[in-house]
Amino acid sequence: MTSDNVRAGAVSRVEDVLAGRVVSAARLMRDLDDLVPGAVDELKHLYPHTGGAFVLGVTGNPGSGKSTIVDCLIRRYRDAGLRVGVVAIDPSSPFTGGAILGDRIRMQRHATDEGVFIRSMATRGHLGGLSRSTQDVISVMDAMGHDLIIVETVGVGQDEVDVVSTAHTSVVVVVPGLGDEIQAIKAGILEIADILVVNKADRAGADRTVADLSMMLDLRSEGAPAVRILKAVAINEEGIADLVEAVDLHRQDLDHEAEGRRRALDRAESRLKDLLRTLALESALTRLEAGEGLAALVERIAERKIDPYSAAEQLLAELMGDS
Amino acid sequence: MTSDNVRAGAVSRVEDVLAGRVVSAARLMRDLDDLVPGAVDELKHLYPHTGGAFVLGVTGNPGSGKSTIVDCLIRRYRDAGLRVGVVAIDPSSPFTGGAILGDRIRMQRHATDEGVFIRSMATRGHLGGLSRSTQDVISVMDAMGHDLIIVETVGVGQDEVDVVSTAHTSVVVVVPGLGDEIQAIKAGILEIADILVVNKADRAGADRTVADLSMMLDLRSEGAPAVRILKAVAINEEGIADLVEAVDLHRQDLDHEAEGRRRALDRAESRLKDLLRTLALESALTRLEAGEGLAALVERIAERKIDPYSAAEQLLAELMGDS
Repeated sequence: MTSDNVRAGAVSRVEDVLAGRVVSAARLMRDLDDLVPGAVDELKHLYPHTGGAFVLGVTGNPGSGKSTIVDCLIRRYRDAGLRVGVVAIDPSSPFTGGAILGDRIRMQRHATDEGVFIRSMATRGHLGGLSRSTQDVISVMDAMGHDLIIVETVGVGQDEVDVVSTAHTSVVVVVPGLGDEIQAIKAGILEIADILVVNKADRAGADRTVADLSMMLDLRSEGAPAVRILKAVAINEEGIADLVEAVDLHRQDLDHEAEGRRRALDRAESRLKDLLRTLALESALTRLEAGEGLAALVERIAERKIDPYSAAEQLLAELMGDS
Repeated sequence: MTSDNVRAGAVSRVEDVLAGRVVSAARLMRDLDDLVPGAVDELKHLYPHTGGAFVLGVTGNPGSGKSTIVDCLIRRYRDAGLRVGVVAIDPSSPFTGGAILGDRIRMQRHATDEGVFIRSMATRGHLGGLSRSTQDVISVMDAMGHDLIIVETVGVGQDEVDVVSTAHTSVVVVVPGLGDEIQAIKAGILEIADILVVNKADRAGADRTVADLSMMLDLRSEGAPAVRILKAVAINEEGIADLVEAVDLHRQDLDHEAEGRRRALDRAESRLKDLLRTLALESALTRLEAGEGLAALVERIAERKIDPYSAAEQLLAELMGDS
C-alpha cells in the first residue's frame, strides 16, 4: 500500500477509517457520493482491507415488515458480539431531501450503540447511480472492520434489485394474502432470493403463501440453487432465530460451493462495469464543456437537428481521439 | 435524410415503420433492445419524424388500479380518434422471461384494435438499461404516427422514476388509507407528479388522503409547478373524464410555459447521457476482449489485487488512447 497520490489529511483519514472511526467514515462516504477525486484515491487505499465483511441483503414490498426484521437481526448479531453496518435505501423525498420512512426511527435505538453503523441512502441523486454509491459505502464499512453489513431496500426497481443481487445472501420478505399483482412482483424478486421469509405469519393465508411460493420455486429450472422458506412474526421476534440459522447455512453453502466464487466474480464484474460507465460519462462531459458545450448539443437533439445516437457516437469518437 | 449506411431491407423497414406497420415496428424494437447496429441506423433515420406524439406517464404502487385507469384512458382517446401506443413496464419473471401481470390481460381486448399498439417491457435484461430501451420504443411509436403514448410503470425504483419523468405529463395513482410507509413512498413520487389520482375513492379515507396530499404539496417550495389532485373509481369509469381534462389542461400549460421547453431539454440531455454511458461501456468491453480480457481483470478485482476504480480508470485511459 503506497500513498503517493493521497494528501496528508487523506492519509490520516484512511487510517481513521481503518481504525473504525465513524465520523471520518461518514465524511468519506459523503465525498465518495459526490465523486470527489481525493476520496476515490482514499477508497483505493482501503480496498485491500476489504473482503472480510459478510453482506446480507433484505428486500420486500412496503409494509412487509422488513425494517422490523432488520431491527431484530441487528440485535441478534450484536448479542453475538459482531460489528454490524446497515445501509438503508429509501425513496427520497423532494421535501426533506432525504430518508423519511417513519419506522426507520425504530432503528435509531441502535444509534447510541457504537457497534452499529447505520447509513441511509436516498434512491436518487447519486453521481454515477445508486449501485455505485452503495458499493462504495459497503467497501468503507467493510474496511472499518464490520463483520456483517445489512443492505435494506424498499421496492423492486431494477436499480434496487441490482444492489441486492450483489449481497452474499439475499433475504426477500413477503406477507400472506396479497393480491395477484403483488404476487407477480414477488415472482420478479424470487430470482434474487436465497431465503424467503413469510412475515406476519399469524395472519390468515400464511400456509397458503408458503405453498404458493414452494410451487413457484419448483417451477424453476433444474439445478437452480435451493431457496429456504421460513415463517416469521417479526414484531414478536418469532422466527428470527430460524432466519439467523438459515443465513448461517446459506453462508456455509457459499463457502463450500462454486456458487460463492461465481458470485464474487459477478460482484467484481458489475462493479467494474458500473464504474466504467460513470467515469466514461464524466470524462465525456468534461471534454464537452471545453468544446461545443453540452447545452448546445442538447438543444440540437431537442430540436431534432441531430439524433441522440449520432450525438453520443460523435462524442465518444472525440473522447477516443478517433476524429 | 440520407440512407447511405442503411441496407436496402432496412430502408424498406424504415418506410414500413413510417407507414405505421406494426410487425416491422415490433421487429425494429426487438433489434434496438439488443443494440443491433443496423437497427440503430434505422432509428437515426426515424428520428427527424419524431416529436409529434404526446407522452403520458402513469405510475403508482401495485394494487392502485393504474392498469384499469390506463384501460379507460385508451378507450377515451380511441373514441376521440387518436392513435394510442402503450409501453407497459413490468417486473420480469425468471420463469416466463417476460411480463406476467394478470390484469395486463384485460388490456388485450385492445389487441384487435389497429389504432392501439401495446408493448410490454421487462424491467431487466435490456442492454444499456430500461430507460434507453423505453426511449427507443417511444421514438419508434412516435415515428409510426401515434398521437398519444402512455408509459405505464409499476413501483418506484430509480430507473422507473427516470422513465416516467421523461413523459410530457406524469400521472401518479394512489389509493386511500395506506400505511405510513406507503405514504412515505408517495412523497418520493410526488416529485414527478403533474396529476395525482386518488383511485378507489369509494373506499373510506379518500377525502383524508386528498387532504394529506394537498398538505404535502403545500409544503413544497414556492414556484413549484401546480399539481392537480383528482378522485376516481376507475373500475366504474368514474373520474376518467376529469382525468382526461386535467391531462389536456396540463398539456396546454406546457405549450404556453417555459416549463415545456425545459422538459424537452431535460429529456434530450438524459437520453444523450444514457446513450453515452451505454456506448462507452460497449466500446470498452470490445477493446477489453482484444486485450487482457474482461475475465482476467474481473478475477484480479475479486482477489483484491486491483481496486475497481483503478481498473476502470486504466480501461478508460486505454480506450482514450492515453496510455
